[in-house]
Amino acid sequence: MASRFFSQRNLDFLLYEVLDLESVTKYDYFADHNKKTFDMVMKEAGKMAKDLFFPIFEEMDREPPELEEGEVKVHPAMKKILKEFGAGGWMNSSFSYEEDGDQLPFTLANAINFMFSAANYSAGAYMGLTKGAAGLILTFGDEELKEKYVPKMFTGEWQGTMALTEPEAGSSLSDITTMAEPTDEGYYKIKGQKIFISAGDHNAVDNVVHLMLVKIVDGPPGAKGISLFVVPKKRIDDNGKLVSNDVICSSLYHKMGYKGCPLTQLSIGDADDCRGWLVGEEHQGLRYMFKMMNEARIDVGMGAVAKATGAYYACLEYCKERLQGRKMGQKDATQPQIPIIEHADVRRMLLFQRAVNEGALALLLQCGKYVDLHVALPDGAEKDRNFLLLELLTPIVKTYPSEMGVQAVSQGLQCLGGSGFCDDYPLEQYYRDIRIDPIHEGTTGIQGMDLLGRKVVMQDGKAMMYFLEEIQQAINQAKAYPELVPFADRLNDAQTTLQTVTAEVLNLAGTKGTEIFLADATLYLELFGIVTIAWQWLLSGVAIQKALQGSVSKADEDFYQGKMYTLRFFYGYELPKIQGLATRLADTDHLTVEIETGFFAD
Amino acid sequence: MASRFFSQRNLDFLLYEVLDLESVTKYDYFADHNKKTFDMVMKEAGKMAKDLFFPIFEEMDREPPELEEGEVKVHPAMKKILKEFGAGGWMNSSFSYEEDGDQLPFTLANAINFMFSAANYSAGAYMGLTKGAAGLILTFGDEELKEKYVPKMFTGEWQGTMALTEPEAGSSLSDITTMAEPTDEGYYKIKGQKIFISAGDHNAVDNVVHLMLVKIVDGPPGAKGISLFVVPKKRIDDNGKLVSNDVICSSLYHKMGYKGCPLTQLSIGDADDCRGWLVGEEHQGLRYMFKMMNEARIDVGMGAVAKATGAYYACLEYCKERLQGRKMGQKDATQPQIPIIEHADVRRMLLFQRAVNEGALALLLQCGKYVDLHVALPDGAEKDRNFLLLELLTPIVKTYPSEMGVQAVSQGLQCLGGSGFCDDYPLEQYYRDIRIDPIHEGTTGIQGMDLLGRKVVMQDGKAMMYFLEEIQQAINQAKAYPELVPFADRLNDAQTTLQTVTAEVLNLAGTKGTEIFLADATLYLELFGIVTIAWQWLLSGVAIQKALQGSVSKADEDFYQGKMYTLRFFYGYELPKIQGLATRLADTDHLTVEIETGFFAD
Repeated sequence: MASRFFSQRNLDFLLYEVLDLESVTKYDYFADHNKKTFDMVMKEAGKMAKDLFFPIFEEMDREPPELEEGEVKVHPAMKKILKEFGAGGWMNSSFSYEEDGDQLPFTLANAINFMFSAANYSAGAYMGLTKGAAGLILTFGDEELKEKYVPKMFTGEWQGTMALTEPEAGSSLSDITTMAEPTDEGYYKIKGQKIFISAGDHNAVDNVVHLMLVKIVDGPPGAKGISLFVVPKKRIDDNGKLVSNDVICSSLYHKMGYKGCPLTQLSIGDADDCRGWLVGEEHQGLRYMFKMMNEARIDVGMGAVAKATGAYYACLEYCKERLQGRKMGQKDATQPQIPIIEHADVRRMLLFQRAVNEGALALLLQCGKYVDLHVALPDGAEKDRNFLLLELLTPIVKTYPSEMGVQAVSQGLQCLGGSGFCDDYPLEQYYRDIRIDPIHEGTTGIQGMDLLGRKVVMQDGKAMMYFLEEIQQAINQAKAYPELVPFADRLNDAQTTLQTVTAEVLNLAGTKGTEIFLADATLYLELFGIVTIAWQWLLSGVAIQKALQGSVSKADEDFYQGKMYTLRFFYGYELPKIQGLATRLADTDHLTVEIETGFFAD
Repeated sequence: MASRFFSQRNLDFLLYEVLDLESVTKYDYFADHNKKTFDMVMKEAGKMAKDLFFPIFEEMDREPPELEEGEVKVHPAMKKILKEFGAGGWMNSSFSYEEDGDQLPFTLANAINFMFSAANYSAGAYMGLTKGAAGLILTFGDEELKEKYVPKMFTGEWQGTMALTEPEAGSSLSDITTMAEPTDEGYYKIKGQKIFISAGDHNAVDNVVHLMLVKIVDGPPGAKGISLFVVPKKRIDDNGKLVSNDVICSSLYHKMGYKGCPLTQLSIGDADDCRGWLVGEEHQGLRYMFKMMNEARIDVGMGAVAKATGAYYACLEYCKERLQGRKMGQKDATQPQIPIIEHADVRRMLLFQRAVNEGALALLLQCGKYVDLHVALPDGAEKDRNFLLLELLTPIVKTYPSEMGVQAVSQGLQCLGGSGFCDDYPLEQYYRDIRIDPIHEGTTGIQGMDLLGRKVVMQDGKAMMYFLEEIQQAINQAKAYPELVPFADRLNDAQTTLQTVTAEVLNLAGTKGTEIFLADATLYLELFGIVTIAWQWLLSGVAIQKALQGSVSKADEDFYQGKMYTLRFFYGYELPKIQGLATRLADTDHLTVEIETGFFAD
């Protein structure tokens, strides 16, 4: 077991020195908070993550949930964790006062998420799902639904879920077939099947509240006919008692990783006795769900960077302790071996992990701040600006940490050699755990199409224009520091590349049609992601240089120097990857569209 | 379970149409063979792989070996498999007549390896290890050792191992501490500990023969003092009976994947009763071991491409069957869903797998042919040329399939979405299984240093010169076909890049010292690997175009067209990656060498 799983120092740096999170407290909405409350909240969360979540990180993997006689048994500690999480007010901290929350900035809630997920992603997922489900009810549900369900979800007594996927409807949600038949009693009768539902049933709670996408009988076909329902595992009868609502966990999936949180298949209304309650209006389900999607996708990105960060610190500890080999050129075998962190290739792998993880974390917190400013600002252009930036960057903030996190953990595992492949060290678990992130809440392919097909072009490219302004602003700030000028110049080149590629690809939409236009959207997303993280690193660079101009302690000096090396690493090793991507995106051989399926015969 | 795990059509294409394997039969050494015998051998092997290996691919993962009362219990079918493998003559097929083998080309033995490993890598590993160990005895051992050990190894009754690694000696083999004390009885007394020994003990055989690296007491320090010993689990007593030789399996590792083959920790001579027999001369152990290393590293590369190929065919099957979504631009939700192979992004992921796997397989077989020509040719420049090319390309042929295979399997898993993460499909197992390959038999970092620090510079760059000649020859051949000219031109540019980068990096050796020279050796290896595979794809292109000039069946037409698209994919999507790598390698910021360890504090 590693001795730590994240760096509070780095989190403080990003929140306060780069993002100036305290500045949001000047708005009425966050006026009750200040840096002191932020620090206190983080301290408490860090303690809980360390004492409750982290100790069972491995256990939850080794003893995954089991379905026994219709009941899903999860790790015995989960009941306590859910209750303490609820009692501590962690479930509703970022909801508004009106919603019975603490109106904490989303950025901070996000940072706390990071701690819990880095300690034990599987455990944290239960709460994340409940928060998301409660948020949907609070945003779109009527008073009755809010009163009936949300309080028990906030205390951690009831589990919330997002029940979207069906056997024939994964990425293509418009194809769901679970049906709702209206009755005269104010509820609908629900019938169907849902698969891949996380925390869809388990014995650490008294009830499970599914926020379910369903088609109302005789509704319009496709996405336009989908409605959102509350479908509880147990409903409240006339005597106020919980009784079965005919939602059965028919099987559990066996996952490669992220095992601590059960993944369920649900049979709904098999006995024709399942009731569901409409959330908001009919046929608006997909729209509602997508309103929550930005936050859900930030959650996935945060989960990925959290896992990769936990993996990094476990790897770092090993690299400092493990003695192996000698400095290049030292041929005297009687000399003692050195810690492997002294080898350049190992440092390269460590810096790769840092460059990816710290850059991704910066972006995640940045997006949190867009959420907060959008909430806090009065109506107007500035509010819209923050919203559009968030919309544009959501596919990036979901995908970059996920895809690159997989690679970062892989490099972490590699540093351990054979030990990385064995379960005496946690790297192999992180490697398995993180592989879900490029898949859930919309695969990387879906994110690419969202970015290029929707976000880049929306409102005549307004979001894109704002983003380029943000980059330009960072470049201007950086130019004030001689140490940053070479990197500001490289970011400037990179944004030119991004603009050129964007123009080329958009041109395809008109000349070659949608299919060719979007064929390499995943690669466009990859290029966009690298430029985005380069921008974040330059912002970190400005904060580093600002700090180094003052007088700093030895520990802080080392910290800032380490960050500065990591920035240089990102610009030296990662940013050049856009060259190959740009070449490909400019290629006019549309072979993935043209190839015939028959050519995959052998 | 997928319905197949490799393509015989593609194997035939590479062996006969690209490599012209039959041509080796013109040499005396292979004169007894012809295409007919090759085909027969492959047919038999394919049948065995399908009937014996493939059916227990999942079982061996789900029920891994266990250590019970000092005995390692492996899958019950292993005993049968080992025996049939031995009885079928598969263990010694590529050994010389003198060594009681069939003198089959190594290329063909290699192709057969590919089949077995694609069917079930864990099962195949047992035999691969025995072959390697037997090869060491046959090459360097005396007659007594040969007679005593090899026959039982060839029949599959005894297991062979390569016992190198120790707790303090992984990548740094010169630090081993297992000791041998001479006696007057012709044997040495052995004492020490070995870790990470594959198939180091199990109940499917009667004995285990360890080829062990050991230091002889009072020998010179470091690599120069290492000797090679035969250390059996059981030795033969004066009555010809097998008795314990004090080699104890003290524990089993729990691996993330590749679970079917036990990974053991061995305590040797705890009761002061372990005997070992010297192989060859004293203090030559590392040299002997490295003589076998080329083949062992080809084996790892082959294992990687085999796993990635098995994963590809499982993925392909899913993509053809799974219906999800509609063509881009088709908004009518009442239209039926289409197989996901119709989506450009899925085809991109399929073609990526093909481009990597088929390219890597081509290179592996190419290296096999270098081995065969080196064996068959009379002494002289041409023989040396084949040997040097093999030496140069060994780190590539080990690493490219391993590193890119990991990514290929990951893309295969991604095509399945959530199903890829669950064990209802084999992708997650392949994903776990293949992750060992960038680690064992020398990590990727070690391979990079071998390539740049040793192979590129050996004999004043002679191997490198030969390699560039090979590329030039392929370019010249390709230029005869108009369809290949653009790719020949791109390969020409790529080889120029490789040469420029090589000159830049070699220059560092003189001006900046060894540490900076080798700091980015892993990236140099990556760039070198991509150019190498581009060369192989161009050679495939020549064979494709040659075939398409004749009259071909519809099935063959589809096959060649599919290959041609895959070639275009490699040149369009993979080759451009060298641009970013070249930029990095030309960078003069040697930050991984300069950064202080203290900067990794937080």
